[in-house]
Amino acid sequence: MVTETFVVVGGDAAGMSAASKAKRDEPDLEVVVFERGEWVSYGACGLPYYIKGEIQSLEDLVSVTPEEFREERDIDLRTGHEVVEVDPGSETVTATDDDGERVVQGYDHLLFATGASSVVPPFDGTDLEGVYTLGSMSDGRDLRDFVARSRESSPADQPDRGPACQYLEQCVGPVAVVGGGYIGIEMAEALAANDFEVHLFQRGNRVLKGFSEATSEVVADHLDAQDVAVYLDAEVEAFEGDRRVRAVVAGDDRVPVEMVLVGTGVDPRIDLAVDAGVDLGPTGAIATDEFRETNLPDVYAAGDCAEAEHVVTGEPVWVPLALTANRHGRAVGQTVAGDPTEGGGVAGTAAVKAFDVEAARTGVLDPGTAREAGFHPVTRTIEAKSRSGYYPEGGTVTVTLTADRETERVLGASMVSEYGEGAVHRSHAIVGALTEGATVDELADYDLAYAPPFNTTWDPVLTAAKVLAGEL
Amino acid sequence: MVTETFVVVGGDAAGMSAASKAKRDEPDLEVVVFERGEWVSYGACGLPYYIKGEIQSLEDLVSVTPEEFREERDIDLRTGHEVVEVDPGSETVTATDDDGERVVQGYDHLLFATGASSVVPPFDGTDLEGVYTLGSMSDGRDLRDFVARSRESSPADQPDRGPACQYLEQCVGPVAVVGGGYIGIEMAEALAANDFEVHLFQRGNRVLKGFSEATSEVVADHLDAQDVAVYLDAEVEAFEGDRRVRAVVAGDDRVPVEMVLVGTGVDPRIDLAVDAGVDLGPTGAIATDEFRETNLPDVYAAGDCAEAEHVVTGEPVWVPLALTANRHGRAVGQTVAGDPTEGGGVAGTAAVKAFDVEAARTGVLDPGTAREAGFHPVTRTIEAKSRSGYYPEGGTVTVTLTADRETERVLGASMVSEYGEGAVHRSHAIVGALTEGATVDELADYDLAYAPPFNTTWDPVLTAAKVLAGEL
Repeated sequence: MVTETFVVVGGDAAGMSAASKAKRDEPDLEVVVFERGEWVSYGACGLPYYIKGEIQSLEDLVSVTPEEFREERDIDLRTGHEVVEVDPGSETVTATDDDGERVVQGYDHLLFATGASSVVPPFDGTDLEGVYTLGSMSDGRDLRDFVARSRESSPADQPDRGPACQYLEQCVGPVAVVGGGYIGIEMAEALAANDFEVHLFQRGNRVLKGFSEATSEVVADHLDAQDVAVYLDAEVEAFEGDRRVRAVVAGDDRVPVEMVLVGTGVDPRIDLAVDAGVDLGPTGAIATDEFRETNLPDVYAAGDCAEAEHVVTGEPVWVPLALTANRHGRAVGQTVAGDPTEGGGVAGTAAVKAFDVEAARTGVLDPGTAREAGFHPVTRTIEAKSRSGYYPEGGTVTVTLTADRETERVLGASMVSEYGEGAVHRSHAIVGALTEGATVDELADYDLAYAPPFNTTWDPVLTAAKVLAGEL
Repeated sequence: MVTETFVVVGGDAAGMSAASKAKRDEPDLEVVVFERGEWVSYGACGLPYYIKGEIQSLEDLVSVTPEEFREERDIDLRTGHEVVEVDPGSETVTATDDDGERVVQGYDHLLFATGASSVVPPFDGTDLEGVYTLGSMSDGRDLRDFVARSRESSPADQPDRGPACQYLEQCVGPVAVVGGGYIGIEMAEALAANDFEVHLFQRGNRVLKGFSEATSEVVADHLDAQDVAVYLDAEVEAFEGDRRVRAVVAGDDRVPVEMVLVGTGVDPRIDLAVDAGVDLGPTGAIATDEFRETNLPDVYAAGDCAEAEHVVTGEPVWVPLALTANRHGRAVGQTVAGDPTEGGGVAGTAAVKAFDVEAARTGVLDPGTAREAGFHPVTRTIEAKSRSGYYPEGGTVTVTLTADRETERVLGASMVSEYGEGAVHRSHAIVGALTEGATVDELADYDLAYAPPFNTTWDPVLTAAKVLAGEL
């Protein structure tokens, strides 16, 4: 047989998972990956901890190096190559390398794994020095450099710098985080741990708006207790400064800052695919079938640039998170290697550590979204001890559970606890229930593990299910 | 309507759950509970931590006091009353109180919630002073008294007492734990924490035999690292001593000890039910239908004295654990109150903390049991990091997963990690999959929560599922 070629555009989670799986399952396949940057297969989720200083080297975030992909996995990985055109008619991609040289590469199978890019909000001053986003490894390096420079010029043991340092007795300087999602919150932790005075601006009326209100409240209270100044319903209008950013303006507030981290979300990178004639879905990301194939035959899309179907609603959703990118990339690799594989749907599950608190959410929590999908959502929130009441340690788990009134099916959950008290791992029970279409009564009957150092006899998840079942 | 009477025999988890739920849902019901002891509704699972010294009072283990049941819940609770006969013909129970007075009480609905009793092994010396079991609150008090007395007479700061103290530089005296199940292991921890030199005797070739071999190995290695002397394949033949126990004899070993804790399992308390004409099931515990009703109409059995159906095999099993007792007791209460309720099956899920290690198991792991139920079990064990590899903290989760070769259905799992690294809560995902009859591929596609402080992108559960799926 003639050797087939699998071309991957984008060398992060989805792209490298696909490339690796395809080559492993079908060694005769020629696998070519174009990556415009220098880094591949890196753990972007670890960047806040690198900036915080808990991870010492950017290289630590790389799970497999370019050399390993090339030499051990026999993948033709071309870093520093930006794909500028995909032509499905001739089945070729055109890329330019860092020297401006053009390369044309034919393909039999193609994967768009172009990821997502940080949203830059549409107001003045986003181009000032000292305004950062956090999407790439180089963003991470820039932020860590900023932290290091600031700490050098303002050692933590110097006395209060003045009125700006209103929250900490000693601090490096006021900084702003715009956006109260996980990147914003993880960066607030990273910056506060480096003694910065952190001001967090959130447009809506709560942080972590994809989680339940109860979760948002616990996290916001904790941010407050950690001396992060949280501004809710804060519509940022501009960043002010001459060359460098000097202040954030939001309504009546004008907060002097030395740096701004913009974490207002990401957009799918879809231009290349659109130019090639690939259809987008209702969310604005690339539409795919259950095999992640686009409207063009043998052209796939996976990861942060693509949609996936929600396990509860069955509707296409766009949830740009790491596990889905890995799972769907791997499934595409398997499919391309000759074993058609569905990668499974998404539940929109997410987890976050916020200082000494942990939170997770999964499924459908928003009443509007639930109603659009034909459900009649009923929601209850309970608080329960994280370990047996008589056990000497432990904290509180707050569980919000949503179900459909008619079918009594579990639709979604959000939970929060002290860090280490298990809100995140406990959410695993709900993901199973959601994915399997279990009712609240069925969930309440799950024979979950129990021992005093881990939970009460009824794990908080079961207590939430019992309480919600009583309301249906 | 004429007031109906619901009589409960046994006032612990199943009995008091049933009584409380029945009375709450149907306040007109007369609810009478006979309990031969003085304690009701207590957390026996907490006894090892009371003996360890982490819980200060036995009362702390009581979730609801007798007074609260009587006064707040309007339940006719008769402690110090032992039921000596149940007559289904006349629908009466006969009890004797502590003064020997007989009471005859009619019933419309009856629940056997008589629990289980510690097995006393059939060899010499089990009646010596210093030989304990751990089943009841008074056992717990006796053991704590023993610990306190020993520590007083042998303060922890006195020098080595001689050859018996071979494992610790300072210790109170050698003691034996017979049985390597959870009670044995929790008690080994409780005793070691009080500076005893602990010798643990296990009849089989591994501790925690209901868990996977990989789990047993990790736990045994950890016990060893904690200076517990573990004797495997140790058939204890006798306890020696004159009035007090002085040694444990097992094969060629004769180990001098000052105390023995026998934790060789429990038997269901079924005599009263058998005398009343209630049928037992194949396991020797009381047989029930899915509503926990016995062969006698309106006569129920729940908790440690009764069988339940396994969610994987559908077969009756006897798994005497706290959550099932609570859940099935509650279901009987609801049924008796007029709302017939199945309590759900059991997955045989169990969790244990062993010093600084935690472990959980669920479902069917034993190949023989799986084959008897018509499955062809395939098992794989993986080791994975508990948090992202680059995250500064974390440990190792070892996951054993078993599935059926034909249907690819998940049958069971066992996992172990450092304490706090989430083996127990992660098992929640497997319980969902087992209960819902998910395949390994479906489990591998679960959209579980991920963030670097909590797991790798693929949670260890997912990695195990991927690896096992590759073998099917």
